Amino acid sequence: MHKHAMTLISLPESRADAEALDEVDPLARCRAAFALPEGVTYLVGHSLGPATIGAMEAVREASEGAWLNDRVGAWNSADWIQLAERVGGRTAKLVGADASEVVVCDSVSVNLFKLAAAALPLARTRRLVVETDEFPTDQYILEGLSGVADVELIRAEPGQGLAQLNGGVLVKSLVNYRSADVADMVADEAAAQDEGGWIVWDLSHATGVLDVQLAKSHARLAAGCTYKYLNGGPGAPAFLYARGDVAGELSSPLPGWMGHAAPFEFTSDYKPKHGAARFACGTPPILSLAALDGALKVFDDVAMRDVQAKSRSLGQMCLMMAEGMGLDIASPLDPQRRGGHVSLRHPDGYPLVRAMADWGIEADFRTPHTIRLGLSPLFLSYAEIWDAMSELAEIVETRSWDTACYREKAIVT
Amino acid sequence: MHKHAMTLISLPESRADAEALDEVDPLARCRAAFALPEGVTYLVGHSLGPATIGAMEAVREASEGAWLNDRVGAWNSADWIQLAERVGGRTAKLVGADASEVVVCDSVSVNLFKLAAAALPLARTRRLVVETDEFPTDQYILEGLSGVADVELIRAEPGQGLAQLNGGVLVKSLVNYRSADVADMVADEAAAQDEGGWIVWDLSHATGVLDVQLAKSHARLAAGCTYKYLNGGPGAPAFLYARGDVAGELSSPLPGWMGHAAPFEFTSDYKPKHGAARFACGTPPILSLAALDGALKVFDDVAMRDVQAKSRSLGQMCLMMAEGMGLDIASPLDPQRRGGHVSLRHPDGYPLVRAMADWGIEADFRTPHTIRLGLSPLFLSYAEIWDAMSELAEIVETRSWDTACYREKAIVT
Repeated sequence: MHKHAMTLISLPESRADAEALDEVDPLARCRAAFALPEGVTYLVGHSLGPATIGAMEAVREASEGAWLNDRVGAWNSADWIQLAERVGGRTAKLVGADASEVVVCDSVSVNLFKLAAAALPLARTRRLVVETDEFPTDQYILEGLSGVADVELIRAEPGQGLAQLNGGVLVKSLVNYRSADVADMVADEAAAQDEGGWIVWDLSHATGVLDVQLAKSHARLAAGCTYKYLNGGPGAPAFLYARGDVAGELSSPLPGWMGHAAPFEFTSDYKPKHGAARFACGTPPILSLAALDGALKVFDDVAMRDVQAKSRSLGQMCLMMAEGMGLDIASPLDPQRRGGHVSLRHPDGYPLVRAMADWGIEADFRTPHTIRLGLSPLFLSYAEIWDAMSELAEIVETRSWDTACYREKAIVT
Repeated sequence: MHKHAMTLISLPESRADAEALDEVDPLARCRAAFALPEGVTYLVGHSLGPATIGAMEAVREASEGAWLNDRVGAWNSADWIQLAERVGGRTAKLVGADASEVVVCDSVSVNLFKLAAAALPLARTRRLVVETDEFPTDQYILEGLSGVADVELIRAEPGQGLAQLNGGVLVKSLVNYRSADVADMVADEAAAQDEGGWIVWDLSHATGVLDVQLAKSHARLAAGCTYKYLNGGPGAPAFLYARGDVAGELSSPLPGWMGHAAPFEFTSDYKPKHGAARFACGTPPILSLAALDGALKVFDDVAMRDVQAKSRSLGQMCLMMAEGMGLDIASPLDPQRRGGHVSLRHPDGYPLVRAMADWGIEADFRTPHTIRLGLSPLFLSYAEIWDAMSELAEIVETRSWDTACYREKAIVT
């Protein structure tokens, strides 16, 4: 095997190479925490992370333990009242932030709305910017905010958001959901700040798979998904980051009681909590939040640089093998410019993904032609990816999807 | 026992009377669905409904069944993708609405924001109104919307919201969270509509305990809590109602992808779903939503008029007995003007509530002096309430809280 000099990528050239990498993989021990069946290679961790023992236990404890036994008293006995901030603190460690800078609440959509609205009064110009290949819900949310706040929304061409920022507020994904292209957070933040503009980072496809360093990148505002690489469970509440030195200047447009400094005094006037917690809103969905809390245990004692390095190696291996099959590659070949998944294109993409599932290889499909393979480094091994890609080669070579009825339409999230 | 002529209230005058009422109670069979321990009289169902067998099973099925076994495929196999609308349909039956008029999503706070923002462009005048004794988060949310949309917010004195509406948008609870006073939905809606104004009803303390008839009351917009009398679990997602004939005119200020007619086509332009479902936003917290779905089973084949009648009888019994103890009554004596809880005031309210807990009677406390007793008719019996109030009489008479250390501060929600 050889190492990619620039980026320390481990690229196996045989199954024996892959096995050798697994033997020295510092993350190999994490697999035991996941409740994954034998015979399945799960490449959809970028969409819905799989169940972990920790998440299962935490949900059972919250429902059949605290709720059942303590009823309303569980808000105190299980300290649910602080859970959103506690889980925020666990998440903060994974994105290079302080505990007080992150809170878990609501969905990514709602959190992007809050942050973009809160940034508007601080931006040099009152305008919203989003690129036309941004994740659709981010575009919709800015359209909604644009309407309710009567602010111009600029729909920039892909890659042109910053050029059109002009001191306004840009919502931007660190990792593009389709191609896995990674933005340059340090350069983009510096450029935006230089002209009095603000970026709200959507970290949905980055968190838990890249070594995101919010503080070091001078990022000020971000939100992200917890049900992808953080394995928090279906629709687990999202996180929101507001840097410590700016949080105090920000007002949530959705100042619900859970963001109030003293919610149980029931006063008419709003006094926000310190830090990111001021962006909490209504009562959080505790069972879903508990699952996320339990799922995050697998990240204890894991170094995010190891996570990032392994994901990039796995992705590189996928791309090299996919190239050999003649598949169209829709992700950057440079691992430093790529997130945790790789995208391939094939005119028969959907039936191909269905055929893969019959071989135990679970991937996802995005219209019209994109196959995405998510490389979650905590539960995937090099040998497993080697085998899956070898099988994919056979599927592609034999066009095995032509022999079965795989052509109906799917819904996956 | 005698019947209150005007309102068909069953008011027992002895424990034998109470037992006789239990014997003919059409809701008595529901108790078996609840996971409540022996020896506890749970009077906090207006804050957090207790766990039910149905909710426990549904959570376990969603987490240890669908998520664990089907992973991302569960969005299809367990039909999670429609769950918010399906649970909305179950909730609709309990508030006199059609299935398509109700969706379950986000929190009450977020849903009130959406509805108030959506009503603004349709209101005759661009103003927001809320009363100063309204549930605080409702006030905070309108303050937030007022800021982001640059709309005047009128803080009306208690009871004066409608008088100050002037064709604007009023957020109003059907049942006051403190006193349990019930507003006159029919009269208020008529008055608001006559002058081109809109009311967004907060049904949090009404749903699941009163026979709310949204269609018959001509109500157009409402949101409400599902973790109180609907027993959906801690922080279970809230519901949102938009009447069928107005939903199409309304635009959500938070148009997330789950409210899009075709979320998986990933287009840049927003096409809202039909009906209330257009107000769905981000990916819903499935485990919490599943718990609610399971909890609602207990309402199958239950007539809401029976629920309302029993709750009023239980409440009347509490108030009559509390009057005999010399307690200060902070709820309407007329059962038709009262929601599902009764509020009492005592200068030693908090230690008194703590002492009650030692007798197995769980109630809640709101600063500075209010003791609230929630009368959830699906799991409480007449005899149980008779016994609890008899014990409360003894606690009050002996001032038993003076003998123990009950004076520390609590947090309950």
